[in-house]
Amino acid sequence: MKKLRVAILGVTGAVGQEFLSVLEERKFPIAELRLLASRKSAGKKIKFRGKFYKIEEAKPSSFDGTDLVLASAGAKVSRILSPEAVKRGALVVDNSSAFRMDPRVPLVIPEVNPGDVRKNKGIIANPNCSTIIMAVPLYPLHRVARARRIVVSTYQAASGAGMQAMRELEKQTQEILSGKKPTKRIFRHQIAFNLFSHDSAVRDDGFTEEEFKMIQETRKIFGAPRLKIVPTTIRVPVLRAHSESLVVEFEKPLSENEAHKILKKAPGVEVVDRRHDNYFPMPVDASGKDKVLVGRIRKDPSSENGLAFFVSGDQLRKGAALNAVQIAELLFKKH
Amino acid sequence: MKKLRVAILGVTGAVGQEFLSVLEERKFPIAELRLLASRKSAGKKIKFRGKFYKIEEAKPSSFDGTDLVLASAGAKVSRILSPEAVKRGALVVDNSSAFRMDPRVPLVIPEVNPGDVRKNKGIIANPNCSTIIMAVPLYPLHRVARARRIVVSTYQAASGAGMQAMRELEKQTQEILSGKKPTKRIFRHQIAFNLFSHDSAVRDDGFTEEEFKMIQETRKIFGAPRLKIVPTTIRVPVLRAHSESLVVEFEKPLSENEAHKILKKAPGVEVVDRRHDNYFPMPVDASGKDKVLVGRIRKDPSSENGLAFFVSGDQLRKGAALNAVQIAELLFKKH
Repeated sequence: MKKLRVAILGVTGAVGQEFLSVLEERKFPIAELRLLASRKSAGKKIKFRGKFYKIEEAKPSSFDGTDLVLASAGAKVSRILSPEAVKRGALVVDNSSAFRMDPRVPLVIPEVNPGDVRKNKGIIANPNCSTIIMAVPLYPLHRVARARRIVVSTYQAASGAGMQAMRELEKQTQEILSGKKPTKRIFRHQIAFNLFSHDSAVRDDGFTEEEFKMIQETRKIFGAPRLKIVPTTIRVPVLRAHSESLVVEFEKPLSENEAHKILKKAPGVEVVDRRHDNYFPMPVDASGKDKVLVGRIRKDPSSENGLAFFVSGDQLRKGAALNAVQIAELLFKKH
Repeated sequence: MKKLRVAILGVTGAVGQEFLSVLEERKFPIAELRLLASRKSAGKKIKFRGKFYKIEEAKPSSFDGTDLVLASAGAKVSRILSPEAVKRGALVVDNSSAFRMDPRVPLVIPEVNPGDVRKNKGIIANPNCSTIIMAVPLYPLHRVARARRIVVSTYQAASGAGMQAMRELEKQTQEILSGKKPTKRIFRHQIAFNLFSHDSAVRDDGFTEEEFKMIQETRKIFGAPRLKIVPTTIRVPVLRAHSESLVVEFEKPLSENEAHKILKKAPGVEVVDRRHDNYFPMPVDASGKDKVLVGRIRKDPSSENGLAFFVSGDQLRKGAALNAVQIAELLFKKH
């Protein structure tokens, strides 16, 4: 893989910071690095591979002469700047929701639909974090037994709402432990020692936007437009890994043993399923890890070909930055 | 209702303490109060209605001359002492799992099967907290549309494992915020900023004992031995209210509107379902409340007569102490 001129859009955010860690760890070949953010962060310096880089304000000309843009600056910014980067010849891996459901834009999880990257017209969308963490362990089972209906409840970390949300969880916790009233700034509801329905808008059908993303995006990534999914998305007082409880009905029979075997060989997945000492996937174990942990694998006695399992995955890594960098690796590896 | 001679077994525990609050608030008619606990708490004093009571060591003779025993001292103690209390003429409302599935013992939620108390032979069992919090809002819907299959994932508070577990959550949180390693004593896994599969034993079929209780007890309480239930029970870093995400398939059609109407009139239930401002049931709102909060009520588009909803209920109150005192009120109200 040749060395690339890389721009990171939204570098000061939680995912932006994770981009830097992932690029460093994976020894991603970088010829030139541009760190872009909003005007208020311009001028600040960030260290990468022992060298300091000055953050520049992101504008269309920032992308002149870049090969790859890793974007995580929100849908509004992406809608304006990602096409500008494409115009200037860059490939954009976009972590926002702006282009995910655009039929001309591939939505890719490298462990699931790597081939879709080839259909890109400059932008490749990175899926929602809850979608990725569900899809990575689900897909290998789906390939064998074909999922028909998925009931999923999430336990989502503060990190999904950004770095400030993680700090808010810590601050509120400190306030409550000192007998003070928790200060609410990022989340509408108290997050410390509490939980609440995901902080995205609620649609007319009663599902949150987050739940709608899990439905639509999974269908697109799996190429299964009629796959039935009923998600309930909940924010919990955990710092950075999302967990999900899944009950899946398959078309074909799938035993607990077969599921174990499939998942043990599946890419991006680590089976953590120790019944004898009650050790299963946990956010503290998933945090900082590349793999999605899966466990509590058991036959669902209430449906014909049902299987239940529980997963935890690092929302900032596999749920965002790592998946985007893996997409970039797919895009450039043949050059 | 005549004044009763009441004994509280396990008064120093989280539920034991809650018994006192509930009895006080509900102006329960008490002629004489005995506070019983293990030897190590004997001699300590506890205030109730402005008067101090000395804790006595619980033994068979402690129940001489009592009318009602509210027991929450664990299954092992209950198996020995509850029959001793019955022998001495007391009625026992037992909060442990010792007698719940005994066919001679009624298992009662006053909002669901109040009539069953009449079948008692001295002991009435109080259901598991996760069962109660699920059953109270589910039953009125079940009565109308008959539940066929329930997929439920829980978000269970530390209080379910007792007072020491609540203190452990606070202590670990403090330790982590000060950069220390969290001390694990009660829970095998870190509870602060983490979550884990319920800390009960895992059965051969992969379900935890907690999940098995939810299945068996709900079937017994509803008188629906074939009701299908697939629970996943998870402990979260919340202090005292349990939440549950439910997706229920019914035999008969049940619209979102009908469900709303039924739940608004249902006993023990409060509908909290404000889509426009993203306000739904939360543990902080459920804590200290008698009612189980229910919201996120929405049609499940993936099954014929499916409905999804989310509930939060105070595990120590309706999940334990309040339900037991309500049973006692049922037992004695005609005297």
